[in-house]
Amino acid sequence: MTQRIGTPPPPAGSGDDAAVVPAPSSALVATTDLLVEGVHFRLDWSSPYDVGRKAAAQNFADVAAMGARPTALLLGLGCPPDAPLAVLDGIADGLRDECALVGAVVVGGDVVRTDAITLAITALGDPGELTPVTRAGARPGDVLVLAGTVGRSADGLELLRRGVRAGPLVDAHRRPSPPYAAGPALAAAGATAMIDISDGIVADLRHVAAASGVRITLDVDALAVLEPSLERRLLLAGGEDHALAATLPAGTPPPPGTAVVGSVEAGVGVLLRGEGASECAPSGWDHFG
Amino acid sequence: MTQRIGTPPPPAGSGDDAAVVPAPSSALVATTDLLVEGVHFRLDWSSPYDVGRKAAAQNFADVAAMGARPTALLLGLGCPPDAPLAVLDGIADGLRDECALVGAVVVGGDVVRTDAITLAITALGDPGELTPVTRAGARPGDVLVLAGTVGRSADGLELLRRGVRAGPLVDAHRRPSPPYAAGPALAAAGATAMIDISDGIVADLRHVAAASGVRITLDVDALAVLEPSLERRLLLAGGEDHALAATLPAGTPPPPGTAVVGSVEAGVGVLLRGEGASECAPSGWDHFG
Repeated sequence: MTQRIGTPPPPAGSGDDAAVVPAPSSALVATTDLLVEGVHFRLDWSSPYDVGRKAAAQNFADVAAMGARPTALLLGLGCPPDAPLAVLDGIADGLRDECALVGAVVVGGDVVRTDAITLAITALGDPGELTPVTRAGARPGDVLVLAGTVGRSADGLELLRRGVRAGPLVDAHRRPSPPYAAGPALAAAGATAMIDISDGIVADLRHVAAASGVRITLDVDALAVLEPSLERRLLLAGGEDHALAATLPAGTPPPPGTAVVGSVEAGVGVLLRGEGASECAPSGWDHFG
Repeated sequence: MTQRIGTPPPPAGSGDDAAVVPAPSSALVATTDLLVEGVHFRLDWSSPYDVGRKAAAQNFADVAAMGARPTALLLGLGCPPDAPLAVLDGIADGLRDECALVGAVVVGGDVVRTDAITLAITALGDPGELTPVTRAGARPGDVLVLAGTVGRSADGLELLRRGVRAGPLVDAHRRPSPPYAAGPALAAAGATAMIDISDGIVADLRHVAAASGVRITLDVDALAVLEPSLERRLLLAGGEDHALAATLPAGTPPPPGTAVVGSVEAGVGVLLRGEGASECAPSGWDHFG
């Protein structure tokens, strides 16, 4: 498995006590997630390959949400002694292919015995010459833009729960397609705040509103234009598509592939605007997921 | 718990999608470990605080073994829903204090539900102006030096298995004291190869010998001078003290606190020299741990 993960060739230091990761921009962004079989993924719903792809994708989306480009991944793999090799190989292949997609390499790891298959993923990324974009810089007057899809993964999850095992929405749940390139593009465009939509757009925008000290108004009708076939509750509360939401100064042209879906004002919390939208109190939102 | 871990104040970006980690030297070293209750630690043998200290220590030792200074730690924490808060707080306190000891900060993390308490630790470090030291550069004619202790943790583990619950060797198992400063010092002295002793000095030197394409002769009597009260099998095979072994060009004065314990020749594998030592075939070593 080490060999399989090790393609393409890792940088100097892999297989050593620690890996050496280039940091040409004097800073790296770093994020970590722990994923456990039965809690975060089910191998009867997703293939090992998809589990690997998704595990890498959700970490790389966090890197992209800082405006950075993913460069490296470290894996802590826990598995039961009787885990089939094909399962481990599938996960490794998935990790490797998602790494290849973004131009990152697996630089190190650890394999231990656990009861349930456990993936501890750390992703590192290079912000280039851009200042990493946090959640804290949104200002009144900014516009809210979205890159990527919302609600599809949640719809796919509901289909899986109902026994459906194939189709584009099920695939969207199994293997998200975060808009990686939009992260650095939004940072370059001057994004004042950015976040990866992993818990649902309303829940995640509330993090931005709180960190920035602003109110964010989300235009539900604009979201519905992007995803006309999905129920609004899925658009608002569905996570795991790993879309990116960012705030841009007024008058900034949204980068290609991003759409304006709201605005930023003085105040607190997230306000929903549009047909059938009701006010969402800052402390009162419970997402459906 | 987040607040507790967050002291001292983390750098910009923590609590965001990803943390921003300074990388003043255009490279970082990175290492990851996954630790599971019942497999890697026992809470009836070690306090939660000691578990936290040791989890951070073993990762920081890997960073030091590259010649780098630990700067940041990311934590993925898995815990059962009924895990006592005091246990989690204890682990967090231990991680925080080991970070403080080396001047590193906790920059990010993830908390999820697992059956057994699980710690996924990623440590990052700054090599400064030094080239990170791998396992692959040892050359015939080099001398082998050791910083830190060997065998104490293994002795403490045997005592714990026999029911002993206190004493300096038990403490050495519960909370290792890696010689962090020796890592950069050995790199600055010109170390050609370096490794963290986690599996036992013979097993780990075999990694260096293989990566460097050399034979390493270990002077068992010299080791015994350093630890006169321990059985030789523990000196040779005991891991988890997290000593550092390094090779230095002949004639290089060993940095303060390091001792010469062997030499490097043409050949393969690890050879034991000294009273009662028998030849250790390259493929034939089974460590006792």
